[in-house]
Amino acid sequence: MDLLDRPHHDGSALYVEPGRPRLSDRIPVRLRVPAGWPADQVLLRVSRDGDPLRLPARLERSTPDERWYVAELPVDNPRVNYRWLLVRPGGYDWVTARGVTSRDVTDAGDFRISTHDPGPDWMPDAVGYQIFPDRFAASPAARDRPAPAWAVRAAWDDEPSSGGPASAHQLFGGDLDGIAGHLDYLRELGVNLLYLTPFFPGGSVHRYDATTFDRVDPLLGGDAALGRLTAAAHRAGLRVIGDLTTNHTGVTHEWFARARSDPSAPEHGFYYWDHDSPIPLPAWSAMYAAQDAWPDGFSASPDYATWMGAASLPKLNWRSPELRRRFVEGPDSVAGRYLRPPFALDGWRIDVAHMTGRFAADDYYDTVARLTRATVDAATNGQGMLLAEHFYDTSRDLDGDGWQSTMNYPGFIRPAWTWLTRPGTDVRFLDLPVPIPRRGGADVVRTATDFASLVGWQTTLRQWNMLGSHDTPRILTITGDAAVAEVGAAWLFTYPGIPAFFAGDEGGATGTTGEHSRTTLPWDQIARGGGPRWDAATHETYRALVALRRDHEALRRGGLRWAVVTDDALAYLRETPDERLLVVLARAPWAGAELPAWISRDTPELLYGARRGSVPGLTRTPAAWCLSGAGPAAGVWRCA
Amino acid sequence: MDLLDRPHHDGSALYVEPGRPRLSDRIPVRLRVPAGWPADQVLLRVSRDGDPLRLPARLERSTPDERWYVAELPVDNPRVNYRWLLVRPGGYDWVTARGVTSRDVTDAGDFRISTHDPGPDWMPDAVGYQIFPDRFAASPAARDRPAPAWAVRAAWDDEPSSGGPASAHQLFGGDLDGIAGHLDYLRELGVNLLYLTPFFPGGSVHRYDATTFDRVDPLLGGDAALGRLTAAAHRAGLRVIGDLTTNHTGVTHEWFARARSDPSAPEHGFYYWDHDSPIPLPAWSAMYAAQDAWPDGFSASPDYATWMGAASLPKLNWRSPELRRRFVEGPDSVAGRYLRPPFALDGWRIDVAHMTGRFAADDYYDTVARLTRATVDAATNGQGMLLAEHFYDTSRDLDGDGWQSTMNYPGFIRPAWTWLTRPGTDVRFLDLPVPIPRRGGADVVRTATDFASLVGWQTTLRQWNMLGSHDTPRILTITGDAAVAEVGAAWLFTYPGIPAFFAGDEGGATGTTGEHSRTTLPWDQIARGGGPRWDAATHETYRALVALRRDHEALRRGGLRWAVVTDDALAYLRETPDERLLVVLARAPWAGAELPAWISRDTPELLYGARRGSVPGLTRTPAAWCLSGAGPAAGVWRCA
Repeated sequence: MDLLDRPHHDGSALYVEPGRPRLSDRIPVRLRVPAGWPADQVLLRVSRDGDPLRLPARLERSTPDERWYVAELPVDNPRVNYRWLLVRPGGYDWVTARGVTSRDVTDAGDFRISTHDPGPDWMPDAVGYQIFPDRFAASPAARDRPAPAWAVRAAWDDEPSSGGPASAHQLFGGDLDGIAGHLDYLRELGVNLLYLTPFFPGGSVHRYDATTFDRVDPLLGGDAALGRLTAAAHRAGLRVIGDLTTNHTGVTHEWFARARSDPSAPEHGFYYWDHDSPIPLPAWSAMYAAQDAWPDGFSASPDYATWMGAASLPKLNWRSPELRRRFVEGPDSVAGRYLRPPFALDGWRIDVAHMTGRFAADDYYDTVARLTRATVDAATNGQGMLLAEHFYDTSRDLDGDGWQSTMNYPGFIRPAWTWLTRPGTDVRFLDLPVPIPRRGGADVVRTATDFASLVGWQTTLRQWNMLGSHDTPRILTITGDAAVAEVGAAWLFTYPGIPAFFAGDEGGATGTTGEHSRTTLPWDQIARGGGPRWDAATHETYRALVALRRDHEALRRGGLRWAVVTDDALAYLRETPDERLLVVLARAPWAGAELPAWISRDTPELLYGARRGSVPGLTRTPAAWCLSGAGPAAGVWRCA
Repeated sequence: MDLLDRPHHDGSALYVEPGRPRLSDRIPVRLRVPAGWPADQVLLRVSRDGDPLRLPARLERSTPDERWYVAELPVDNPRVNYRWLLVRPGGYDWVTARGVTSRDVTDAGDFRISTHDPGPDWMPDAVGYQIFPDRFAASPAARDRPAPAWAVRAAWDDEPSSGGPASAHQLFGGDLDGIAGHLDYLRELGVNLLYLTPFFPGGSVHRYDATTFDRVDPLLGGDAALGRLTAAAHRAGLRVIGDLTTNHTGVTHEWFARARSDPSAPEHGFYYWDHDSPIPLPAWSAMYAAQDAWPDGFSASPDYATWMGAASLPKLNWRSPELRRRFVEGPDSVAGRYLRPPFALDGWRIDVAHMTGRFAADDYYDTVARLTRATVDAATNGQGMLLAEHFYDTSRDLDGDGWQSTMNYPGFIRPAWTWLTRPGTDVRFLDLPVPIPRRGGADVVRTATDFASLVGWQTTLRQWNMLGSHDTPRILTITGDAAVAEVGAAWLFTYPGIPAFFAGDEGGATGTTGEHSRTTLPWDQIARGGGPRWDAATHETYRALVALRRDHEALRRGGLRWAVVTDDALAYLRETPDERLLVVLARAPWAGAELPAWISRDTPELLYGARRGSVPGLTRTPAAWCLSGAGPAAGVWRCA
């Protein structure tokens, strides 16, 4: 096995002085070089004022297995990128966040460090649980509330519609007091951070088409219920974040109504209109309709800009100072108000963050992110979370004074799905009009690594990793195999970044689309210890994995070294100065592999073994630890 | 041979509608897909407002060899990135500017298009010639001018010092009228764009330490001589650009003198001072001294910020509106004034552009680039050139309203040197404290491709490609072999981007360092048709290659498709709708290769064959063209 025979650095405590650097700090940074690796000289290359310095690294200590080099990294700009240069006879190698390369590469894969606050220190310790309020649990009072005009009542055990307008109107009747009534369940599951999709009144059950931001939807229990929920959650040791649509409002929003009826109203400037649009709106809208498989009910050309051609979702124009003030700027803005008592939310998830403020030649993206961040920081004394929805390349979006992290679709969910999917699935691959392709481990790890390299380590620890969300199929449907889904869960809970899952995953929920995945929790079956919609073994797996993560700082903050990357098996070490854990994941039977003897002097202690799949065997020869080729399988060992 | 069996797109006329797009344009873009490549469906993925559209491409025409797809690319933001999606059974491929990949990748390698003016249309037709004014030619009057205090006279045929303070003071005595007196030579050589290193008075012979920007150095003939030179050059069909140091001035600059002596002078704000520095200056300066092999004479800690710790070069503080106004903003600024009569320069090269305006938490880089660009555009009616020195990753620097292009150290000179260098050289690899490593063709092409993908095609055509400059060793010293140096020249003149060379390269000049390479032109030997410092065969090669480029639009603007990439041989096609040229380069004997028969129905016409090395043989079998493995060798054929 030779992946562990390469030089390694990441931003974890073994390699980088912990703590947030300030401008002009000198930070010790370390490189681990295997004994056999040729390196006559080791240098640190650090960008400063646009130009790289080449600073000497000195050998700090050696063991028979490895040498450790240390250099002083000058943090003389707010953001710094760096890499290592290892000089050897006839050439040199670069060590970057994308690995070791012997040719010259752009800075895109450099390590990154930032003087900006990466977000609260509790984030790397969080385990996220996503709730779609209509579908989690209904309080007794929920049944008595009149349904709005758009709603079509569904029974709690109905299967959600898989798409189209019907899915947006199916009212199952969950509410905020329903969530508050099941905090014991969540505590016992072990999660400590709830993410609620929107709770503002809207024209649909998903509420991403808000009609106002001034109050919590009475259908969910109103303002008082939100206050009760956050108070109870905080008492139970859980944090709660909400969901803001800074990109658009609903077409029935009170701002849009005034904007439309009165061109002299301040709200008129909150939107983009055909008559003064910077680009022709009909042609702009038509491009959305030109895409494949575009949903019915999306109008091609209203006289205002929209989210992706959806007439129900007029796009906001962030040039307006009044919009900024009302929505995100300061303690009395929408973003600020709900972070204060009586609501006291712990932060926000921002819907389609990556599109916010961007339209034609307008680009207020950074402005919105920065204003929102400042409001969150001020309202929470720096303890609030600001998470951005983002499906694509986050290169310029993080490590600064805006969003703290993103829903990690590109860096986790996409690579994970392509490894875990059953062959020949017909489940669509997110926005791409193709089924999820099945790929080998090398491609999967390269993609995950590429995207991870776009952000600094402190941001990596705060990324929102998922196997699914309310916008995607469920992982069990994608794998078609509960044992493989458990391998995916083992990956999620042992990987750097906040492990987060959509309510129901822990009971083996299924779903072929985002809408279809918005299943309710079958509380009667949960109480009975299982049923057609509740798999107790999966529930136990999730509880065990959450507990494992909460028990081991190495899983939450430890460095990441890949040890095995084959088509069907992946293994990595998670390491802190105090602990080394070995994680082995196999989606199928494989050939097995040898790991170097130094990873553990004594027999590793098995901390977790897949419940439904196998546990890979780990046996000793004089020179190596031998992993058996069991699969589907997952195992986590503590090395000593 | 299978490199030509991959789908291909670039920004040239075969693939992208020529012309500068405007916001909201719909541009036809085309993809060429070899007959055997699986593609059930072809889509164009285009970023818009931060989110990618997936637009259908339709099959436009097919031949037995290939299919052409076309899609409409919406240019709805000032900068757009795009790539192609080819769906096949079981998966898909992306076609990006870094090639074809079957896994998911970040946007860094996407194709790029911009609504910004890429720079004047004459740039892709330029052949650049760099002149260090002290070393090109001396007019009769030059001999009579008194030498300044810093100068040490050298005889015209002396070998320049290879570094240290002495090299900055060696005065050989060239001047601007000396250049004007040799325009016939330059016309006959075929170059059409002169780049002059600084002509302002300074404290050294390189003049990057200006004492004023108000006049041309009298030692070079003064203002009148510059006017005479540009007027004569324009009459001869040559353009002339100057060299501005926006990052710093000399310590003897009149601004710095006033700034230092009078803290209330407006010039005080032009610099960074210890007493109000945003970061501690001694520690900041010390990092430069901590680097390996730092030149003598660089002071570690003056009480002002500097270029890289050089006390002679105080760094400018672009926060100052008065500095902006005086230096780069508007027609009467330094940048503006010399573009107008009587000087009428055709643009500027910007020294250490990548550091300009960047210091600690200050970042006025974009501001300086934009202001300078606006001044150049206004003064020249959009016909002026703005070239930035840049040694590293240019990701965010081009395709906008700032610099038009860069001296292409990362994308051309670095990869070219690593392919052309003699094995075991001790010539230092630019800023890296290692000898130039020798690499195989695959690594070299991947690096060149990575860096090319950072900019749009129109910028690629305007990049300043070099095999050397006044800051580097000479290519003949690097190769140690005139035949291999000629292979390098064939690459330079047949590749996308402005081919540019340092005066003397065309006569086989040598040099081990930048300073050592600042050789004079031996006019007596040139007149005699050769001599110890002038190789007539090399001169003839350069003339032939310049003429070849000027005769073939495909070399100046044609697309680029790699055909052969092996350790020792590279071949590519340069293609317009009217012409297909085949370029073959071999640094050493190699195995030869087959090229598909379709590249030429008839026998290709040899347009250029290396004079000193060999010409690769090209013979026909029924199914292929066979390239012989001759080397060192270079050949250019027209296919028909």
